[in-house]
Amino acid sequence: MGFKLPLLLLLLCIISLSLTSSAAYRSKKGKVYKPCKELVLFFHDVIYNGKNAHNATATIIGGAAGSNRTILTSPYHFGNIVAFDDPITLDNNFHGKPVGRAQGLYLYDKLDTFGAWLGFSFLLNSTQHKGTINFIGADPLMEKTRDISVVGGTGDFFMARGVATVSTDSFEGDVYFRLRVDIKLYECW
Amino acid sequence: MGFKLPLLLLLLCIISLSLTSSAAYRSKKGKVYKPCKELVLFFHDVIYNGKNAHNATATIIGGAAGSNRTILTSPYHFGNIVAFDDPITLDNNFHGKPVGRAQGLYLYDKLDTFGAWLGFSFLLNSTQHKGTINFIGADPLMEKTRDISVVGGTGDFFMARGVATVSTDSFEGDVYFRLRVDIKLYECW
Amino acid sequence: MGFKLPLLLLLLCIISLSLTSSAAYRSKKGKVYKPCKELVLFFHDVIYNGKNAHNATATIIGGAAGSNRTILTSPYHFGNIVAFDDPITLDNNFHGKPVGRAQGLYLYDKLDTFGAWLGFSFLLNSTQHKGTINFIGADPLMEKTRDISVVGGTGDFFMARGVATVSTDSFEGDVYFRLRVDIKLYECW
Repeated sequence: MGFKLPLLLLLLCIISLSLTSSAAYRSKKGKVYKPCKELVLFFHDVIYNGKNAHNATATIIGGAAGSNRTILTSPYHFGNIVAFDDPITLDNNFHGKPVGRAQGLYLYDKLDTFGAWLGFSFLLNSTQHKGTINFIGADPLMEKTRDISVVGGTGDFFMARGVATVSTDSFEGDVYFRLRVDIKLYECW
Repeated sequence: MGFKLPLLLLLLCIISLSLTSSAAYRSKKGKVYKPCKELVLFFHDVIYNGKNAHNATATIIGGAAGSNRTILTSPYHFGNIVAFDDPITLDNNFHGKPVGRAQGLYLYDKLDTFGAWLGFSFLLNSTQHKGTINFIGADPLMEKTRDISVVGGTGDFFMARGVATVSTDSFEGDVYFRLRVDIKLYECW
Repeated sequence: MGFKLPLLLLLLCIISLSLTSSAAYRSKKGKVYKPCKELVLFFHDVIYNGKNAHNATATIIGGAAGSNRTILTSPYHFGNIVAFDDPITLDNNFHGKPVGRAQGLYLYDKLDTFGAWLGFSFLLNSTQHKGTINFIGADPLMEKTRDISVVGGTGDFFMARGVATVSTDSFEGDVYFRLRVDIKLYECW
């Protein structure tokens, strides 16, 4: 009889531990982590080239000496910084109904090939998701997939952290590209 | 008698769990989370317009083709990127004693209305707070309040994470604005 | 006899708690935290000045009215934004074998002295480390050491968080500087 109370408390203790299992995900390098939330989204970037003001969603805003704002610098655009306000869609159709906007900047920052640094946010506003997701990271464009960090979020993504895998789903010259973003959150609140 | 030791250990176990209660905050979406630290601060931005060098705290440093560095681009400043070094005050008085500086960049990145992307730091140096708070996020300026992410901190804000609610407390044309920032940290170390 | 099972469970419970000890690091402000991973790395920045295209690793890409892209603005470079692709080495030798690249931007954002805001990534690719580390933070250059945030990582640095202490290890005029970065991760997965 005497240890029924301790047993009950033990049970509570163990249940509590299982509720704090996110901590267990951190204990070992190399362990496979299960995302607490996953989203796959696409966004579409049309860079202003002096002739496409009607449908451009992005524009060069800076660059090295001798660069201009309507042509990306040859050969690897090093130093070009671009502001964007790109539609986000659920599939790869540019004309699909947007579920939000991808807004921020990318900076070509690789001397000997194509590569960029990204700082941007997803502003989602659909029946499914309301809130923002904030991203930071390196985008070595010649690799098929590139991992960047989800460093925070608000609304439905309050305090989120995770990793987003970016891949170039399609592109047309220097004017249009479409990125597929596989977002995996490992911290959900 | 026999279960006194287990009871003691249980107690320790339960106390330990209560000390790790921050984990419990993460267990359910939709739960109300209690901040571990809150601050309300104001910062004051005076954009250089070619005539106010004596009191300007910010300057346009880039923009789309045809833009210049002393007038924000019409109609929504799309592409203008601004560097700032703004005084932070405890209340809305521009001439109040600064408790630190807000430093970094904002980028107007919305095509069809006013909106920005923020990357900046608070460098606090007062009797009350010493350290930095690092912010990233989208700032859709037409909304009364906007949530951005606190992605890290140093000093008194070592390893902090949270959400900051930004609101435009006042503005004068395109030259002056004052932001109120309600910082709520949910991870304190 | 009767409490042997509870004792065993208690033991398990306590062991589990000790495995989740990262949570305990958060419980008190002022406590000394032990990093779960430490790295010391150096990176080398050679700013393009119009004459050093052969070995420049960085270039001015924007600035205030009247600034140019080959000379940092006097007196404190306020508003100059720089893109960089700098070699990372294990020691302070510029000609050492690079273990990766530091890529991103710095923005001079202090009106009355030298100071910058940093947004960049380490892309490490050596036998020892593969992955990226993402940094954000303020860099008040006149201080001997400056703390910035590690806001995320990928690969070997999956989901990392921490603090990096930056110091100017050497510099030559406005053209070359070398930063030492002491990275201390406090969240390792």
